[in-house]
Amino acid sequence: MSLREEALHMHKLNRGKLETVGKVPLKNQKDLSLAYSPGVADPCKEIYERPETVFDYTMKGNMVAVVTNGTAVLGLGNIGPEASLPVMEGKALLFKNFAGVDAFPICLNSKDTEKIIEAVKLMEPTFGGVNLEDIAAPDCFVIEERLKKEVNIPVFHDDQHGTAIVTVAGLLNALKLVGKKITDIKVVASGAGAAGIAIIKLLVSFGVRDIVMCDSKGAIYEGRPYGMNKVKKEVAKFTNRGHKQGSLADVLKDADVFVGVSVAGALTKEMVQSMNDQPIIFAMANPTPEIMPNEAKEVGAKVIGTGRSDFPNQVNNVLAFPGIFRGALDVQATHINEEMKHAAVKAIADLVSKEELSADYVIPSPFDPRVAPAVAASVAKTAMETGVARIKVNPSEIHQKTVELATIGKGE
Amino acid sequence: MSLREEALHMHKLNRGKLETVGKVPLKNQKDLSLAYSPGVADPCKEIYERPETVFDYTMKGNMVAVVTNGTAVLGLGNIGPEASLPVMEGKALLFKNFAGVDAFPICLNSKDTEKIIEAVKLMEPTFGGVNLEDIAAPDCFVIEERLKKEVNIPVFHDDQHGTAIVTVAGLLNALKLVGKKITDIKVVASGAGAAGIAIIKLLVSFGVRDIVMCDSKGAIYEGRPYGMNKVKKEVAKFTNRGHKQGSLADVLKDADVFVGVSVAGALTKEMVQSMNDQPIIFAMANPTPEIMPNEAKEVGAKVIGTGRSDFPNQVNNVLAFPGIFRGALDVQATHINEEMKHAAVKAIADLVSKEELSADYVIPSPFDPRVAPAVAASVAKTAMETGVARIKVNPSEIHQKTVELATIGKGE
Repeated sequence: MSLREEALHMHKLNRGKLETVGKVPLKNQKDLSLAYSPGVADPCKEIYERPETVFDYTMKGNMVAVVTNGTAVLGLGNIGPEASLPVMEGKALLFKNFAGVDAFPICLNSKDTEKIIEAVKLMEPTFGGVNLEDIAAPDCFVIEERLKKEVNIPVFHDDQHGTAIVTVAGLLNALKLVGKKITDIKVVASGAGAAGIAIIKLLVSFGVRDIVMCDSKGAIYEGRPYGMNKVKKEVAKFTNRGHKQGSLADVLKDADVFVGVSVAGALTKEMVQSMNDQPIIFAMANPTPEIMPNEAKEVGAKVIGTGRSDFPNQVNNVLAFPGIFRGALDVQATHINEEMKHAAVKAIADLVSKEELSADYVIPSPFDPRVAPAVAASVAKTAMETGVARIKVNPSEIHQKTVELATIGKGE
Repeated sequence: MSLREEALHMHKLNRGKLETVGKVPLKNQKDLSLAYSPGVADPCKEIYERPETVFDYTMKGNMVAVVTNGTAVLGLGNIGPEASLPVMEGKALLFKNFAGVDAFPICLNSKDTEKIIEAVKLMEPTFGGVNLEDIAAPDCFVIEERLKKEVNIPVFHDDQHGTAIVTVAGLLNALKLVGKKITDIKVVASGAGAAGIAIIKLLVSFGVRDIVMCDSKGAIYEGRPYGMNKVKKEVAKFTNRGHKQGSLADVLKDADVFVGVSVAGALTKEMVQSMNDQPIIFAMANPTPEIMPNEAKEVGAKVIGTGRSDFPNQVNNVLAFPGIFRGALDVQATHINEEMKHAAVKAIADLVSKEELSADYVIPSPFDPRVAPAVAASVAKTAMETGVARIKVNPSEIHQKTVELATIGKGE
């Protein structure tokens, strides 16, 4: 059977991938009287009297909504909310298996940002966090920004921040290999979608000063008279201080780092050759990278990361989001702030030891069981330090709990 | 430990009662490539090209939203969406354990019917059905009526129809015992909330001609100058043909059947004595019935049903909703129509055989494992016959599948 046939068969056999299951027994009258009437009235009354106990007595504190409208799904584009459901179920499985986070797909039938924002706000009581997924730019920016202000649970657009966090973690390690400082490097990013924007923002917050973003029309600069939108105008303000114009090939000359979240073939061997010595390449177009790793290496690329599992240095969001939400949920965080994202970057990067570090290993494996616990503990600690945690928990307890909850890589 | 302490302990220990769990393994790279990237793209593409396959490849076809705004929770009233979550999680457990239906709580933070309707419409892609729960009258009527028109999946307000279906099933059997015909009886209902209204509507559709509904101000009649609302005006049009006025005690004289969904103590011994011979009493106020069964029996009540598990003839919604949704989902029904509700009533009533029928056994036990399969098969059959089923399935297969899926009453 081909992978396609096997995937279709597996999805059909099980009618999807996710189910809801009781955490308590329900076999007899006694069970019913505790889990439902009349016993259930007591936790209801407690929550009514002390609203914060909703985290003690319900699933809320471990439940994340995976929210999409299906407008930018995988490489498939705007396939709509129904057709996006297999991805959202898969995402929920990753949450559960990597970090013991319960997650539930909410596929919304709308392209209206106001309606989406309103629906998520209405659902807030059920959830401890919101993972926005596969919503097209620029709507995803509007939705995330508004929801972060208007709800009191963490809101995280994984396509932006998950990718950004793992990319920057890989870059920090790659820079150690080539002996360059993040404040000195010249970065060029290709692709001005959700991930690209988030990556350059995170790079800037990590100290990168020389950064140029390109879209399909070339370098983005302040006052560019074509192909701009609100987000690109914002990008132009904090990037490209040299006001460079021209194609990706033009601005890539002498760059230390290429970050691609664009399309296959966007990066040629000649372009890599025009870069500074020991170039670092993150070619994350899916399923085919901007340049194939072997081609990039042939012309001197020092480190190359892609989105694919069949090459070294896979930039896989699963290194970030399960641990981030695990840590945020465990301290009942109200937000995932920039400091927590930084903590996640460092936790991921630090898992690659000096001894292990090599051109083919700047990012831990997605199946490395140390990742989610380390990220969770670090994110939770930072949440407490930055005042967005509702409760205090020892980070080492969170670490240990995450080790226990994760099932990935464990035997039966 | 008291029940209260035990219930609080159980809820806290498990942090609620519901979790999301994968139906497929996710342990290694191969699993990941099937359940997530890149394999997941294939079911996505299939659904995009043939939308009806969303029922084949996703959880949708077995997933019910349990939707509330927490305005009429148990006997607790308007405690809000957070405090209602323990009930909704419990409800989801009942769906799963009684009929293998996956269900997920959606607690909406609004009392605005338009906002609630809009939110549910937006979420339609994720779900195969909507169970409205614990939403106060008259908003629950508006929400259900609108959603039934505006979404293409079954919408069922359980507080109305679940209670009505089980009550009428019990009444059909009680009438066999006392040898009265449903078209001849005189019924008086006490309580004009969601359940009361649904019961009288269902009774009328089963042929009851003489029926009077009372609220706290007495008999409802057309043109009553006080305490009316839109729904009561509608009730007045199809009930109380004799235009009777006065208190509950006044109109109850010579009645054959009392149906109470009102308050403890609403029915006195004297009032029962004033009824016709062999009176049938459904005293379903919770937790304390309108009259206690022993008191009613002392003054000649022939059959008495309550909402309580510690008395005979418990009117428990769990006899209805799991099987109804099981049957509706299995044929991908677009609606739960009146014929399907009738089918559920008859399926429940028919499970009490002539030989078993007695004053203390007019309704099957909530733990009778025959109920959900019988209801599911009958509801599915009726859905197919009345043109609301998207697919055809042999009802006996549905019966067998429900037997297998239900876990209630089964051992470890």
